[in-house]
Amino acid sequence: MLHFESDYMEGCHPAILKKLEEINYEKNTGYGFDKYCASAAEKIKAACGKPDAKVHFLIGGTQTNSTVIRALLRPSFGVVCVDTGHIAWHEAGAIEASGHKVLPITGVDGKITAEQLDTYVRMFYKDENWEHEVRPGMVYISHPTEWGTLYSKKELQDLHAVCQKYKIPFFIDGARLGYGLAAYDTDVTLQDLADCCDVFYIGGTKVGALLGEAVVFTDPSLEQDFFTIRKMSGAVLAKSWIIGVQFDVLFTDDNYLKISKNAIDTAMAIKKGLLAKGLDMYLDSPTNQQFFTVTDEEVKRIQTFAGYGFMTKPNETHSVIRFCTSWATAMSDVDALISHF
Amino acid sequence: MLHFESDYMEGCHPAILKKLEEINYEKNTGYGFDKYCASAAEKIKAACGKPDAKVHFLIGGTQTNSTVIRALLRPSFGVVCVDTGHIAWHEAGAIEASGHKVLPITGVDGKITAEQLDTYVRMFYKDENWEHEVRPGMVYISHPTEWGTLYSKKELQDLHAVCQKYKIPFFIDGARLGYGLAAYDTDVTLQDLADCCDVFYIGGTKVGALLGEAVVFTDPSLEQDFFTIRKMSGAVLAKSWIIGVQFDVLFTDDNYLKISKNAIDTAMAIKKGLLAKGLDMYLDSPTNQQFFTVTDEEVKRIQTFAGYGFMTKPNETHSVIRFCTSWATAMSDVDALISHF
Amino acid sequence: MLHFESDYMEGCHPAILKKLEEINYEKNTGYGFDKYCASAAEKIKAACGKPDAKVHFLIGGTQTNSTVIRALLRPSFGVVCVDTGHIAWHEAGAIEASGHKVLPITGVDGKITAEQLDTYVRMFYKDENWEHEVRPGMVYISHPTEWGTLYSKKELQDLHAVCQKYKIPFFIDGARLGYGLAAYDTDVTLQDLADCCDVFYIGGTKVGALLGEAVVFTDPSLEQDFFTIRKMSGAVLAKSWIIGVQFDVLFTDDNYLKISKNAIDTAMAIKKGLLAKGLDMYLDSPTNQQFFTVTDEEVKRIQTFAGYGFMTKPNETHSVIRFCTSWATAMSDVDALISHF
Amino acid sequence: MLHFESDYMEGCHPAILKKLEEINYEKNTGYGFDKYCASAAEKIKAACGKPDAKVHFLIGGTQTNSTVIRALLRPSFGVVCVDTGHIAWHEAGAIEASGHKVLPITGVDGKITAEQLDTYVRMFYKDENWEHEVRPGMVYISHPTEWGTLYSKKELQDLHAVCQKYKIPFFIDGARLGYGLAAYDTDVTLQDLADCCDVFYIGGTKVGALLGEAVVFTDPSLEQDFFTIRKMSGAVLAKSWIIGVQFDVLFTDDNYLKISKNAIDTAMAIKKGLLAKGLDMYLDSPTNQQFFTVTDEEVKRIQTFAGYGFMTKPNETHSVIRFCTSWATAMSDVDALISHF
Repeated sequence: MLHFESDYMEGCHPAILKKLEEINYEKNTGYGFDKYCASAAEKIKAACGKPDAKVHFLIGGTQTNSTVIRALLRPSFGVVCVDTGHIAWHEAGAIEASGHKVLPITGVDGKITAEQLDTYVRMFYKDENWEHEVRPGMVYISHPTEWGTLYSKKELQDLHAVCQKYKIPFFIDGARLGYGLAAYDTDVTLQDLADCCDVFYIGGTKVGALLGEAVVFTDPSLEQDFFTIRKMSGAVLAKSWIIGVQFDVLFTDDNYLKISKNAIDTAMAIKKGLLAKGLDMYLDSPTNQQFFTVTDEEVKRIQTFAGYGFMTKPNETHSVIRFCTSWATAMSDVDALISHF
Repeated sequence: MLHFESDYMEGCHPAILKKLEEINYEKNTGYGFDKYCASAAEKIKAACGKPDAKVHFLIGGTQTNSTVIRALLRPSFGVVCVDTGHIAWHEAGAIEASGHKVLPITGVDGKITAEQLDTYVRMFYKDENWEHEVRPGMVYISHPTEWGTLYSKKELQDLHAVCQKYKIPFFIDGARLGYGLAAYDTDVTLQDLADCCDVFYIGGTKVGALLGEAVVFTDPSLEQDFFTIRKMSGAVLAKSWIIGVQFDVLFTDDNYLKISKNAIDTAMAIKKGLLAKGLDMYLDSPTNQQFFTVTDEEVKRIQTFAGYGFMTKPNETHSVIRFCTSWATAMSDVDALISHF
Repeated sequence: MLHFESDYMEGCHPAILKKLEEINYEKNTGYGFDKYCASAAEKIKAACGKPDAKVHFLIGGTQTNSTVIRALLRPSFGVVCVDTGHIAWHEAGAIEASGHKVLPITGVDGKITAEQLDTYVRMFYKDENWEHEVRPGMVYISHPTEWGTLYSKKELQDLHAVCQKYKIPFFIDGARLGYGLAAYDTDVTLQDLADCCDVFYIGGTKVGALLGEAVVFTDPSLEQDFFTIRKMSGAVLAKSWIIGVQFDVLFTDDNYLKISKNAIDTAMAIKKGLLAKGLDMYLDSPTNQQFFTVTDEEVKRIQTFAGYGFMTKPNETHSVIRFCTSWATAMSDVDALISHF
Repeated sequence: MLHFESDYMEGCHPAILKKLEEINYEKNTGYGFDKYCASAAEKIKAACGKPDAKVHFLIGGTQTNSTVIRALLRPSFGVVCVDTGHIAWHEAGAIEASGHKVLPITGVDGKITAEQLDTYVRMFYKDENWEHEVRPGMVYISHPTEWGTLYSKKELQDLHAVCQKYKIPFFIDGARLGYGLAAYDTDVTLQDLADCCDVFYIGGTKVGALLGEAVVFTDPSLEQDFFTIRKMSGAVLAKSWIIGVQFDVLFTDDNYLKISKNAIDTAMAIKKGLLAKGLDMYLDSPTNQQFFTVTDEEVKRIQTFAGYGFMTKPNETHSVIRFCTSWATAMSDVDALISHF
C-alpha cells in the first residue's frame, strides 16, 4: 500500500533523533529557557534577517493558531481569513473557544487578494451598525494555502500594506512553510515573508520534525505576555528543549530548505506523471499537495493501492482527491503510484 | 553543578528513542488512530483492570487538566481542589480561560479529606443563595500531590464515595503517578486508583517520556465528544503515535513502575542523608520530591553546587526548598549532594 | 420628522406604566422569585398550552440568544442558523464569546428549509474528518425572520422533525413574535410554535414592553441549571418583577396579540400605499418590516422627512431600505409617509 | 410582615415613572444614542468633575462587573479583590466565564489595605515562576463594601497610588454608591471617588432606579471598544433611554444624594434602636446594611415579623444577619422593627 494521505505520516530528520539520543541524560531547564531553544531562536532570527524578532516554540498547528490569535485580539474582535482557511473549519472551533469569531472572505484557490481585504475592512466601517458587529482585528493567511497554492511576494506585500493601512496585525500560518519556500518558481524567501507580516510560524510538524512550530514575532511589541498566554493555553512543553533541538537541527546547514525540496520534487513528479496519464488536475499547485478530479469509481480503484486525502465532491459522480508528499517521500513510491494509472 | 530542580530535566527511557528510530520512516495514521496508540491503550487498560475504559493521549499536564475539566463541567460549574493544587495557581489561569472557576479547599500537606469535601458540598447547597454561586461540578486531586504526599487507598475510596454521593465526577491528576505507585509504603496500586475515580491520567512527561500524558476514562460515558474537545483545545498531536510509542514502551515489561523506582530510591537516599546531616525536613514526603527548611544563608551556599526548587518562605530568614529526583537521577549525584552538607 | 427606523423607539403599553406606579412601594422578592413573574409565567404557559414548560424572564435579545445557546451547547458544538440570522452578524460575537461557533446556512428571504438543514447535518457526519470540526449542536431560527418573513406551520414542523431526527435542540428567536402571530395570513399560532420547538422566546422589548424577553423551555429537561447560567451571563435582573409585571399585563386579555395587530395594520398600509406609488418592493414581508429598493438619490430625499433602516446595497446606484412599524405606530404617520411619495 | 431583606425590593423614584409616562410615545434612538442618555452623561460628568470622562449605561451589577473586567484585562490577567468581594462569590462565575481568574486577598470588614495590595503585587513579581501564573491585571473594590463599610479618602488615595505604581487599572464597584456618599461621617465625595480610580460605576438598581448602572471611565483611554464589548456581553439595552431617563432624574436637583440619605437615616435608626435593645452588632457599618449576631432561636422569632438577609454562621448556635434599608424604607417600619425586640 502506498501512502500519500498527508505530510505528517513519518517521524523526523534523522539528525534530530541522533541529537536527542546524544543529550538524553543532559539536564536541561524546562519551559524553553534552555540552550537549544536559545540557539534555535538565534538561527531562526538570522535566517529571517530579523535580529529583534521574538521566537517561541509551540507544539502543533491548531494550538499555535488559537494561541497567537487570542494573544493578538481584543474581546469582540475577530480574525479575517479565507473561507477555506484552516482556522475556519478544521480546528473544531478552537478560535471560537477562545472567544473570537472567524470572519471568512470567499477566496480563489485558497487565497484572498489585497483588494478583497481592503473592500472587506472598508465596507465594515461604512456600515452604520459596525459597532454592533465583530471588528476585523487581525488577518490570517496560510502560505502555502490549504489548496497548496502560494502567494507571490507582491501579493504578500499588498496584503501587508492593507493591514498597515488599517493598523491590523497580519499573521501567516506557515505549517507547511518549507514546502512554500522550496517551490520551484516562488519569488518569496523566508526573509521576504518575515518582512511582509507581523507574526508568522515556521512549521516543524509537517516539515521534518516530530512536533513543533516556531512562532516568529517580527513585530516584537506583539509578543507581550505571550509566554503566559501560551501557558494558559496549554501551549508550553515542559521539555521544550525537545522542540528547540529539532529547530536547531533544521536551521543548521540549511536543512529546512534542503529536506523540503524532496517534497516538491516528488510532488512535481506526481503532477507530471498523472497529467501524462490523462488525469484531470483540479488546480495547479506548486507545492507538496496535488489535487485531481476523479470519478467515484476511480476513487474506489485508487483505494486498493494508495492512500490519499478526500477534499470535496464537485458533483454527484466525481471527487477531488489529494496526493500529499513530504520531506520523507520516496521517489520510488511516486513511480509506483504513477504506474497504477 | 548538580541538578535537582525538577523531574522533567532529562529525555526519556532509551528504549523509546530506539523505537522512534526504528519506525522513523514508517507511515502512520495521524491524530491517534495508529497502531501504537491502540497498542498502548490496550496495555494501559489491562494494567488498570478496566477493559471498558477509554484512553486518550495528550501532550502535557496543564493542557490535560484544562481539557478534561472543560469536557466534564457544564457552564457555571467549577472544580473543587486543594488550595495548593496545580490548577489553582500554576497553570496561568488555564481553567478560568475555559470559563470555569477553581474552588479551593484549604489542605494539609497538599491533601484534602473526604470529610472536608463532604462539608464543602453540603454547605454549598445549604446556602440559600447557592443558585447565584459556582456549583461544585467535579473534584480534582493530584496523586502524588504537589507536596509529594500520597493518599492512602482508604482516603481515595472515601473521597470517591463523597463524589458518588453528590454525583460529582472525580478526576485524579497523575502527572507524577509512577512515583506514587513506586513509593515504598503506599497501599495504592494502579488498579486501586482506577477503581477510585471517574477519570485520571498517567503522567509521561515526568516519568520517562519525552512528552505525553495518558488520560483514562474509567467511566467511559464521560468520554463523549472528548476527541473534538481535545482538537478544539489544541490537545491533539498530529503525530500522536509519538506519544503512543512512548506509552507502549513504558507499559511493556512493567517499565513504568521499574523506572519510577529509581526516583524513589534516590529521593529516599536524599531524605536519609540530609536528615543524618541535621537538615530540617519540612514535611515527610514518600515520593520523589523532598522538602527541607533551610536558612537563606544556606540557600546561597546550596546555589553554588546544586539546583533546587524554591517553594515558600515560612518566615523572614528561612526558605523551604525542594530536591527533586526522577527516573534518570544517578545515585552518585545524590551522594555528591549529601557530601556537600 | 417621521420615524420608521425600528420597533424599539417607543416606551410600552400604558397599562404597564400604570401597574408599575401602583406597585412602586410594594416590597418584592428579587431575581424573579416574585408573584408577578409567577403569574406571568402561568399565563404564558397557558397561552402556549404547555403546563410543564419552564419560563424565564431575561432582559434583551442578544443576551437571551447567547444565554440560551451557551446553556444548550456542549464545548465544541456550534449553532446552525440562516446566514442572515441575528446571531450570525449583529450581536458583536456574543455567541463566539461564549465559546461557540455560528454555523450559517445560506437562506432565501431570511429562511432555511428542512431539506437544507437535513443536508447540512447529513453531510457533516459524512465528512470523514467530522470529529475535527464543530458539530451542529442546535438549530436557531427567528420567527419572524430578520427579513420580516414567516415560516408556515408545515415548515416549522418539518424543521422540527429534522432536529428530532438528529436529536438536536431547536430554538426559535421570537424577538418580534407578536408581529408574526398577528400577521394576516399566518397559520402559526403561539401553541403551534410551542409545539414545534424545544425552547423559544416571546419578545417583549419590541412588542409593547420597556424591556424583557420571556424564554419558554417547552422541553423542561433543557432548563437544567439555567438560572445559574443566566446569573453567570449577567442575565438576571435584580428587580425581575419589573419584567414579570410587563408580561403579566401583555398576557392579560390577549393584549400581546391585540397590540401587535397595530404594527401589522400600519405595515400593510405602508406596503399597499408605496406599491401604489410605484415603489419597488424588495421582498414580500407579511409583518412589521417592509423593504423597498430605491435609488440612492431617492434615499437622500427620504432622509429629509423620514427615518428608515438601511439594509444593503444590491448595486452601485440603489439601496434596500426598511420601514418598520410597531405596536405604537400611528396610522396618521403612515399616511404622512405615503403622501411624500 | 416587615421587609429588610435587601435594597432592591421597591420600584424607583416617582419622578422617574412620571417622566417615563410623559415620553412614552416619543420616538427615541436605540442603544444609548438618545438625548436622555446624553443629558444624563453630561450631568454625571459634571457631578464627578470629570469633563473628559466617558459614561455608559448598563443594566445590572453582575453584568457591569464582568463587562468592565473583560474589557480591561488581557488574556491570562486576573482581577485582584477582597475575599468577600461580590465578584469572588456571588456572581456565579461571571468573571471566570469571561476567561479571567479572581485573585482574592483576605480582607477585614470587607476592605483591603494599600499595604496588602502592594505586598500582593510585589510578591507576585518576586516569585520566579510568575510567568506561569495569573498576573494581577486590575484591582476591584466596592464602596460601600459587601459589609457596608467605607474606605476613607486617604485609603482610596493610597490604593490608587499602589495601582499607579504598578500601572494596574483601579475599578470601584459602586452598586450602593449613593449610600456611601450619604453616610454621616464619610470624607469621600463623588468627585474624590472619581479622582481616585480609573473606572467606577454609580449604582442605580439599588439606589432609586428600576434598573441601571452608570459606568464612568475617568480614564477615557480605557473606554476603547467598550460599546462593542457591551454588545457582545448582552449589556446594551435596546431602549437604553429608559436607563438614561432614570439617571437624568437622579442627577437632577441632587436627587441621588437626597434619596440616599433616607437609607442612612433609617439604617442609623436601626443601629441605635437595636443596640439600645441589647443586640450584638457584628461590625460597625456606617451605611444602609446593618449586621447583628443573634442566636438561632432569635432568628426563628425574627422570621415571624421581619425579612432579613442571612450572612454567615460564626458558630454552631449563632447567625449573623443583615437588616437592609433603601431610599424607600419608611421610618415607621424601622420603629416597628425595633419595637419587636
